[in-house]
Amino acid sequence: MSSYAVIGTGALGGYYGGLLARNGADIHFLMRSDADYAREHGLRVDSKNGNFVVHPVHAYHNVDEMPQCDFVIVALKSTQNDALIELLPSLMHNKSYAIVLQNGLHVEASTEAIVGKGRVMGGCCFLCSNKAGPGYIRHLDYGTILLGAYRGMDGKSPAVPSEIVQSVVQDFSAAGVPIEGTDSLQLARWKKLMWNIPFNGLSVVLNASTDQIMNTPPSRQLAEAIMQEVREAALACGENIPVSHVDLLMDHTDKMVPYDSSMRLDYLAGRPMEIQAIFGNPLAAAHQAGFSARIVQTIHDQLQFLQATRER
Amino acid sequence: MSSYAVIGTGALGGYYGGLLARNGADIHFLMRSDADYAREHGLRVDSKNGNFVVHPVHAYHNVDEMPQCDFVIVALKSTQNDALIELLPSLMHNKSYAIVLQNGLHVEASTEAIVGKGRVMGGCCFLCSNKAGPGYIRHLDYGTILLGAYRGMDGKSPAVPSEIVQSVVQDFSAAGVPIEGTDSLQLARWKKLMWNIPFNGLSVVLNASTDQIMNTPPSRQLAEAIMQEVREAALACGENIPVSHVDLLMDHTDKMVPYDSSMRLDYLAGRPMEIQAIFGNPLAAAHQAGFSARIVQTIHDQLQFLQATRER
Repeated sequence: MSSYAVIGTGALGGYYGGLLARNGADIHFLMRSDADYAREHGLRVDSKNGNFVVHPVHAYHNVDEMPQCDFVIVALKSTQNDALIELLPSLMHNKSYAIVLQNGLHVEASTEAIVGKGRVMGGCCFLCSNKAGPGYIRHLDYGTILLGAYRGMDGKSPAVPSEIVQSVVQDFSAAGVPIEGTDSLQLARWKKLMWNIPFNGLSVVLNASTDQIMNTPPSRQLAEAIMQEVREAALACGENIPVSHVDLLMDHTDKMVPYDSSMRLDYLAGRPMEIQAIFGNPLAAAHQAGFSARIVQTIHDQLQFLQATRER
Repeated sequence: MSSYAVIGTGALGGYYGGLLARNGADIHFLMRSDADYAREHGLRVDSKNGNFVVHPVHAYHNVDEMPQCDFVIVALKSTQNDALIELLPSLMHNKSYAIVLQNGLHVEASTEAIVGKGRVMGGCCFLCSNKAGPGYIRHLDYGTILLGAYRGMDGKSPAVPSEIVQSVVQDFSAAGVPIEGTDSLQLARWKKLMWNIPFNGLSVVLNASTDQIMNTPPSRQLAEAIMQEVREAALACGENIPVSHVDLLMDHTDKMVPYDSSMRLDYLAGRPMEIQAIFGNPLAAAHQAGFSARIVQTIHDQLQFLQATRER
């Protein structure tokens, strides 16, 4: 049985880790100040698929209390990636792999720089959940993961062996997580960005919910134009997303329950926004490939302004 | 001596008209509900160049009380241009000309449609003033006008004879207005849009003053990128503005006193914004010329969203 460590037991790490733990996995959670509470009361997950509590739970204040594990799940916000250099090394033995479950593009790069090439998987998560209290996660909807090898900024890092990816897929599947392996993590990342860039960005800049953006003609048109531009950027980077994916995303968003994007929740709560991961890195990749994504750059600059003036 | 009518005795029409009146011009002001007050107390202008009161003043509630005039100054906000069809015809005889002193591009088109081709001049005004009360204008800074013949949407309307333009330049000059005639009204309009589009747009979307935009790196960079795109749009429309004009405008804006754009003042006061004149018309002209101005379109859509949701 493989062992897992979870770095960042929040809305995402707490949910997926909780499912693995419920299924009996050997799993260890970095929980900081929540660790005492979780040791006493367990890790609670309220989910539309059924509520449960994992008790006892392996909860830790610090990484130096934690054992080395076969897989380390990186589930922090990418804005905290600077902390990884202190967190990852002691958790990994020389056959460990990292699984980066963060939003954005090339969010795996800082993990790869620490753990080495060919040791990193990335997962695109389609999850709607939040942290409701210490050791308490509320899962609202969705939950699918697309998991694949991360091949580096230049696409030339050696791939994590497919049997390793498959073993993780099996562990998560067995725990009840809808998960698929993918041969093209970057394609999956860009497809997700086609939604995340317009709706995270506009929800903050326009101070609007997703349904307000969809139901007001000028913002609906703008969201669609942004999707098109992200598609163009992906294409410049070698990832060919069919044009029909725009319609599919618009249609899907029309049918969503009214929803606040993660970036808007961060902004409203005064937390740093994942501007670099969701906007800055895709812009840099597109620029590198010779494509100037003017609308995305505009939204990026506006978000940076809002973040900078809020910090004053 | 030529006679003048002023349609819209606000910050702009009240200021320029007031200067003409002080200089003894035969000038008639449409003042709506302010007319009684102005007849009793005069038209008051507090200006950094010296305060004065015009008394008596020819103030009117409605156009049908007003005489026909040689020149009709259109100084309404362009958002009220729908009203021109009711206002202009009775003021004009068959040798009258209209002088459109409004912000934006092709703001003269609705006037031309009423008074006919070859009868319309446009003026770019660089003026900082506001209406402080009934018949009371406060002039803060600047005031230069660039005045030229309006040649229609297609650039093919016959030009107002240059001696007519010159006679207006002389009347305004004699009244103390810094004014120049121009052979290329469109070039002047686009040059002004290079400032108005970034600073009117961003001040509303980012809820920021001009100096805040200039002093925060991401918004400063965005303002400059917008200027560059407006320059590209102008070029596509046949108006070649030197690249150095961007630096000149940035430098000029750095030195301005902290200032709220007219669009931001409109937005904060709950008045309609001049989105069509300042954004929509330039976008349509650029599109017609085969240029897609993505950043300008983005800001346009965001402004429309803000206007639409405010109206709800």
